[in-house]
Amino acid sequence: MAVIGDGSLSGGEAMEALNVAGSELGSNFIIIVNDNEQAIAETHGGIYQNLKELRESNGKAQNNWFRAFGLDYIYEENGNDIASLIKVFEKVKDSTQPVVVHIHTQKGKGYRLAEVNREAWHWCMPFDRATGKPTVDFGSGESYTSITAKYILDKVKNDKDVIVVTPAMPMSVGLGIEERAQLGRQYIDTSIAEEAAVAIASGIATNGAKPLLVTNMTFLQRAYDQISQDVCINNAPVTMLMNFTAFDGLTDVTHLGIFGLAAFTNIPNLVVLCPSSAEEYVNMLDWSIDQKEHPVLILIPGNAVAHRAADKSFGDINKYKVEQQGEKVAIVALGDFYQKGEEAAAAIENELGFKPTLVNPRFGSGLDKELLENLKSRHSLVITLEDGIVDGGFGEKIASYYGPSDMKVINLGLEKKFYDRYNPQQLLESLGITAEKIVERVKTIC
Amino acid sequence: MAVIGDGSLSGGEAMEALNVAGSELGSNFIIIVNDNEQAIAETHGGIYQNLKELRESNGKAQNNWFRAFGLDYIYEENGNDIASLIKVFEKVKDSTQPVVVHIHTQKGKGYRLAEVNREAWHWCMPFDRATGKPTVDFGSGESYTSITAKYILDKVKNDKDVIVVTPAMPMSVGLGIEERAQLGRQYIDTSIAEEAAVAIASGIATNGAKPLLVTNMTFLQRAYDQISQDVCINNAPVTMLMNFTAFDGLTDVTHLGIFGLAAFTNIPNLVVLCPSSAEEYVNMLDWSIDQKEHPVLILIPGNAVAHRAADKSFGDINKYKVEQQGEKVAIVALGDFYQKGEEAAAAIENELGFKPTLVNPRFGSGLDKELLENLKSRHSLVITLEDGIVDGGFGEKIASYYGPSDMKVINLGLEKKFYDRYNPQQLLESLGITAEKIVERVKTIC
Repeated sequence: MAVIGDGSLSGGEAMEALNVAGSELGSNFIIIVNDNEQAIAETHGGIYQNLKELRESNGKAQNNWFRAFGLDYIYEENGNDIASLIKVFEKVKDSTQPVVVHIHTQKGKGYRLAEVNREAWHWCMPFDRATGKPTVDFGSGESYTSITAKYILDKVKNDKDVIVVTPAMPMSVGLGIEERAQLGRQYIDTSIAEEAAVAIASGIATNGAKPLLVTNMTFLQRAYDQISQDVCINNAPVTMLMNFTAFDGLTDVTHLGIFGLAAFTNIPNLVVLCPSSAEEYVNMLDWSIDQKEHPVLILIPGNAVAHRAADKSFGDINKYKVEQQGEKVAIVALGDFYQKGEEAAAAIENELGFKPTLVNPRFGSGLDKELLENLKSRHSLVITLEDGIVDGGFGEKIASYYGPSDMKVINLGLEKKFYDRYNPQQLLESLGITAEKIVERVKTIC
Repeated sequence: MAVIGDGSLSGGEAMEALNVAGSELGSNFIIIVNDNEQAIAETHGGIYQNLKELRESNGKAQNNWFRAFGLDYIYEENGNDIASLIKVFEKVKDSTQPVVVHIHTQKGKGYRLAEVNREAWHWCMPFDRATGKPTVDFGSGESYTSITAKYILDKVKNDKDVIVVTPAMPMSVGLGIEERAQLGRQYIDTSIAEEAAVAIASGIATNGAKPLLVTNMTFLQRAYDQISQDVCINNAPVTMLMNFTAFDGLTDVTHLGIFGLAAFTNIPNLVVLCPSSAEEYVNMLDWSIDQKEHPVLILIPGNAVAHRAADKSFGDINKYKVEQQGEKVAIVALGDFYQKGEEAAAAIENELGFKPTLVNPRFGSGLDKELLENLKSRHSLVITLEDGIVDGGFGEKIASYYGPSDMKVINLGLEKKFYDRYNPQQLLESLGITAEKIVERVKTIC
């Protein structure tokens, strides 16, 4: 038996499976479609009209999307009623061919707040049952998510060419129901369909407008091929903006953001930008959306909001920025691990008595060879820091560059592992990514 | 206007797009479905029964897969007739909402050989018009493709648990119409649907049987997320066997195999095997299909078939093999670039007067740290060779490992670029991947 929500039916992997099941299996495969009339946000796409027709006709509508896949079909209106479900499962349990059991359910049934505020209750942290308010303190200061939502609303208002595209993840960048209403026709939700979202964004860019695709890092994997074949081969100026890119954002094994750098920085033509402050982040967004030369992937920082003066243009691709000129050791600290680089640089100066160089590479997808070459003259060790797995990521490119030279290189980042529900701070310590441990390692080499 | 063949409709990206088009666009988007009743091999899946019903009813069948997506629909039986097509396009050209124009065509129409032998004429090299025989000489000796087909037929015959799964690419491993008939129920073609193919293989493995998924390297990108989320998180013992993995296999920008190592070696738990001889290749296949511990990706070599004694088991994950013990320089030459390593080693011995060490790493996805550590005692330079882009690939992992040490490292491989219809030999020379150029570089370092 397979169980799928109506919101997930819009995804390519689900539809491919329905097609295969519809003729290739010849077994009693039972597919329960739990139709609660909701994706993460509202559903989008033509099939949801067909689901509505099926619900309203008690499963008898003439046109039936599931039957068109070659599947048997049975409808149950009372999807929240156990007795009704037992009855329908008894009907299909000895089926000799694949059958869809389409059940109609009410989202959040039994808890009034969840019944009413459907989108907000897609998931939640521990909460007070009476008020529905979280019992976890999220702090009240600025966050990269609120900065993003504000930026998008302003940008869309002032530039009619900007189109926000999302595969059902508007809340990933703080676009709630009200904000989406403000975006109007400059907003496209493809439902849970990352491949379509990327392909549509590519089409928008190719036709001269300015697509901004938003979702979580982990979901972008589903569109790996579209990004390579559709966006990057054609050099379509799509901006892809990812949230939950950090090692401590979502710590469940299926939702980790730590594989994004390794997955996407090795696709040709794709410019991967890793901002290290609020100013840099907003400037990168602005530059990326307006330029017409490059596909760009921007990783929203996962740490607390930092402030620092930043460049306005990033058209000089792979140009790193020296934030502190020093000697002996150069720390190249990418994106939201830049602050860890600052801490390490301060600790080295305090404890070892010399000022190291601190580089903000900004670009995760390529090398500033001129800068790296220049470092050779007064430095003997380069330390890279990145918020992602080391394998296939940013630092290894620098190790490879210096491979034939005398420069020593230490790559710090996460291991190639499916971490699951870990303690982020303990993990960093075990990997030697603390100012103290970095000082220890520098001592053994310099 | 979008044009799509019936065979491609089974792909998730196509179905996601139909869903979005069916309600989100509200424009005169015209989708031409060119239905010639053929994928690359025959079509598979429930929707093809619906297409048949639509053809046989002249588009009037009650159940209509396209209409179920919310799309308008029009059928044209005479898809090879220009006048009929003009007529139908006139009908839809001012449509105010998305419409599918389903046209029925004959594959290969006008050339008898192609009309009859539909699958063989999916593509061909230059050929003699009268006989249909290629005018290009492919040689007549053994090839890795013929070795593969023979291996699969034997294995399937002798082990009823082995199931071959392919997303419409049986010919990728030499499984023609006759061979598929021999495989019988131990063969599943998902049609062009890589996501479903990988998910089904994962299900087969999880249930204790032995899936062997076959296709071309370039197409596996479409299943990146399934491989990570479905196969690798669950450590499902799926064997994925890829052809056209080499830099000189297919040289069109959309079909390059050179990104496979960078894309897949950085996914946790996935064991990537890169055989360097026929014996090693077959032993790897045999080990992989029978073991129950690891997801495995095997890259079919792209070079001429080589013969050398090989190990039988690869259960000691990431254990490299020293094929020649030497000194000063160690060449670590992966997969079908192993023979280039042999040539370089011979040239170094001839021209520089010492015998270098030659390592056959076999595993593309991890490091043999014990071996790498041992190399430090009598070597000062490690040269890596891989048939793929250097960025994110195999050699950079070795450069990173040696980063903090005195060992010098040179990573040789391709650049992160969308190469297109290039001369392979010239490309290698420009990248310094010839025995002569390697000797030159060694001279400058040792």
